[in-house]
Amino acid sequence: MEVAVIGGGAAGMTAASRIKAINPGWRVVVFEKSQFVSHAPCGIPFYVSGFVEQFKDLCTYSVDFFRSEREIDVRTNTKVVEVGENYLIAENIEKSYEYEWDKLLFATGAKADFLGVEGENLEGVFHVDVENAQKIKKNVLKAENIVIVGSGYIGVEMTEAVLRLGKRPTVIEIQERPLPEYDAEIAAILKVEMEKYVNLKLSETVVAFEGKDKVEKLITNKNEYKCDLAILAVGMRPNSEIAKKIVKLGKKNAIKTDSRMRTSLENVFAAGDCAEVINIVTGKPDWIPLAAPANKTGYVAGVNMAGKDLEYPGSLKSQITSFFELEIGKVGLSEHEAIKEGFETVSAFVTSRTAARYLPDGLIHLKVVADRSGKLLGFQAIGKGVIARIYAASALLYNKCNIKDLFFTDFPYYPPISRVWDPLVVAARNLFRKVGLP
Amino acid sequence: MEVAVIGGGAAGMTAASRIKAINPGWRVVVFEKSQFVSHAPCGIPFYVSGFVEQFKDLCTYSVDFFRSEREIDVRTNTKVVEVGENYLIAENIEKSYEYEWDKLLFATGAKADFLGVEGENLEGVFHVDVENAQKIKKNVLKAENIVIVGSGYIGVEMTEAVLRLGKRPTVIEIQERPLPEYDAEIAAILKVEMEKYVNLKLSETVVAFEGKDKVEKLITNKNEYKCDLAILAVGMRPNSEIAKKIVKLGKKNAIKTDSRMRTSLENVFAAGDCAEVINIVTGKPDWIPLAAPANKTGYVAGVNMAGKDLEYPGSLKSQITSFFELEIGKVGLSEHEAIKEGFETVSAFVTSRTAARYLPDGLIHLKVVADRSGKLLGFQAIGKGVIARIYAASALLYNKCNIKDLFFTDFPYYPPISRVWDPLVVAARNLFRKVGLP
Repeated sequence: MEVAVIGGGAAGMTAASRIKAINPGWRVVVFEKSQFVSHAPCGIPFYVSGFVEQFKDLCTYSVDFFRSEREIDVRTNTKVVEVGENYLIAENIEKSYEYEWDKLLFATGAKADFLGVEGENLEGVFHVDVENAQKIKKNVLKAENIVIVGSGYIGVEMTEAVLRLGKRPTVIEIQERPLPEYDAEIAAILKVEMEKYVNLKLSETVVAFEGKDKVEKLITNKNEYKCDLAILAVGMRPNSEIAKKIVKLGKKNAIKTDSRMRTSLENVFAAGDCAEVINIVTGKPDWIPLAAPANKTGYVAGVNMAGKDLEYPGSLKSQITSFFELEIGKVGLSEHEAIKEGFETVSAFVTSRTAARYLPDGLIHLKVVADRSGKLLGFQAIGKGVIARIYAASALLYNKCNIKDLFFTDFPYYPPISRVWDPLVVAARNLFRKVGLP
Repeated sequence: MEVAVIGGGAAGMTAASRIKAINPGWRVVVFEKSQFVSHAPCGIPFYVSGFVEQFKDLCTYSVDFFRSEREIDVRTNTKVVEVGENYLIAENIEKSYEYEWDKLLFATGAKADFLGVEGENLEGVFHVDVENAQKIKKNVLKAENIVIVGSGYIGVEMTEAVLRLGKRPTVIEIQERPLPEYDAEIAAILKVEMEKYVNLKLSETVVAFEGKDKVEKLITNKNEYKCDLAILAVGMRPNSEIAKKIVKLGKKNAIKTDSRMRTSLENVFAAGDCAEVINIVTGKPDWIPLAAPANKTGYVAGVNMAGKDLEYPGSLKSQITSFFELEIGKVGLSEHEAIKEGFETVSAFVTSRTAARYLPDGLIHLKVVADRSGKLLGFQAIGKGVIARIYAASALLYNKCNIKDLFFTDFPYYPPISRVWDPLVVAARNLFRKVGLP
């Protein structure tokens, strides 16, 4: 059996490993356009800030590991340029060749979105991705006027990275708040904190970059900024161009899949950031390009490609980030996202201490969103103790819980880390009143 | 309507508040034998160590708050000495009187267990409870040879408190490991850490205390120890003596209750540490005297006493503690507890870093126990990042999840706090192999 995997990131390498574990006799060939496999783009901000010294340290495993330990035929620096119904054409520096497959996995990932404005290709303008990480780091060290465009997760993390290198960037956000996927109550707290350190410009749209040999100026609908380094974190899109000739695309041009990560064409699978998944909260297909689900969809694809059976129940878009001491997390839908999805919402926003009142500690701000029947839709938090609550919230949303379940889940109580009425439980009580529970 | 609540701790005050919130016209009388209400015995170690300066700070609310803000008739320094089917007899320093009730709540809590050995009543021998907290603190400061008996949660926390006051205690444990409710893999890590600081004596049974005017010596089945202060943390038992004349007792002499916290007698309820609850993992009645469930059973009792309807689904025995930098947590059953309950178990013990491999952080040791069908039975962890995993585990056990759910719950990934394959997910994969999942 000949198995082709296009893309050697988390999903591709997990699937390849799974297939070889189940069927050691099958040939599994991974085509990877870069020199790295199992690369971890989530680590880019930590590489830029200097926490991670060497770029190769961002890769979980080396190519050699997969070749020798797992007997996977990994072909790096090899780009797949065409895919047909039982073949693909790959190119490396020496040659172009055809490879016939019996089973195929698209694990082509996602790439940074473009603004689509003039001057975006000037030297000194970088989109945050694995290929640019090393260049961004070098340029931050010598730049004087750094502008970060976008303040989603990657924008916020890159902002901290730049600050840690001693530079004070300007951050431009098209929406009226940083982390615009969050609701305003939560984002307001981040805004105050960011404004202590950076020049944060909200509700501004980048219209062009200008410069002779390299970028010198960034122009928005309201201002212009001196700029010798622009870091663009304005979203992602799935790498699905090569796939769309043979399989159907779905949400946001991600590859359409079923719960076994099968595409519309037999023996062809997709996993990771190029593939659609079910959003457990909405029950609808969605595109959720995140590392943990990418690994798991790779696992599920690998199991099913190997002839066993495993279903992927869906993703929750569970996320944690931070800005210096502020922990920030979200899982499921924010209230504005829920309304957009057609839910009639109720919500509770609580501020609570994360220790018994007689012990010193910080504050957590927590927002819980539910529908009018009490079904939980999403959680957002900022402050201290966020991680534990988002972990718990992920398990509650996975189980399609309601606000009674939130109230009655027996969370641990320990005075230094929680109050006896956990902030999650306080939010549930607050929601009881809103839906008429006693 | 006349409502009597016996005991002004967490459960009693929560129930009383709930009843008054729903039926402001009802009279609610709380009989509390001490001068405090809503006292928080979990905080005693933090009071002894000096984190909490004043003992009264351990009480969540003052008596005045409940009297004036919630219009509850709180009678402190008042002991209930007899309870009949529609009356009780209360005593304070001035008088003894009868009170006729229409509805009654037992919220009498739990008290420290006795060893039942000779000399246990000598001066200088203290059981850890609210009444002794102030005396223990004073005595630690002047004692030279401190012995702590018992190394469950309270014993471990008191050990740290004594160490923080600059004293090196001897700790005596009857079982072969500290925190004997945990399995050996987890307890072994705590043992190594405790032995750095204290004289830890395992598998030793206290047989007597000796001394003239006060304790001077502690004698075990193996040794004897100089001792001018003995702190006994050898378990708890429910305060159910007064109740047993009119209602049935259940597990470990806790008051038998149904899911609405009703006892065997109409209009009589029980909540908090004196009451039985369902253990969600075993599905059987159990006695789980912990603060968070105490508050929730008080809430449920109050709602039902007030004439509304709310069911308590049960407790998980979810707990967190720590020993200096080591976080320690457990929810559900350990493997030896599960076996004792008749389960055929499988388990996974994993040691993992709590950050992406390219970032600095600590280790977490995690044990997950399931039955052979894959149903999750319990989680234990020690190290860093324990809190988030025990929070998540609590939500999973509440939902009666299996190891597939553990694998597929979409936990957040953020390089500084987790690995892309979270330790929980690694444990699930490990269990997949043991039950034959792909």
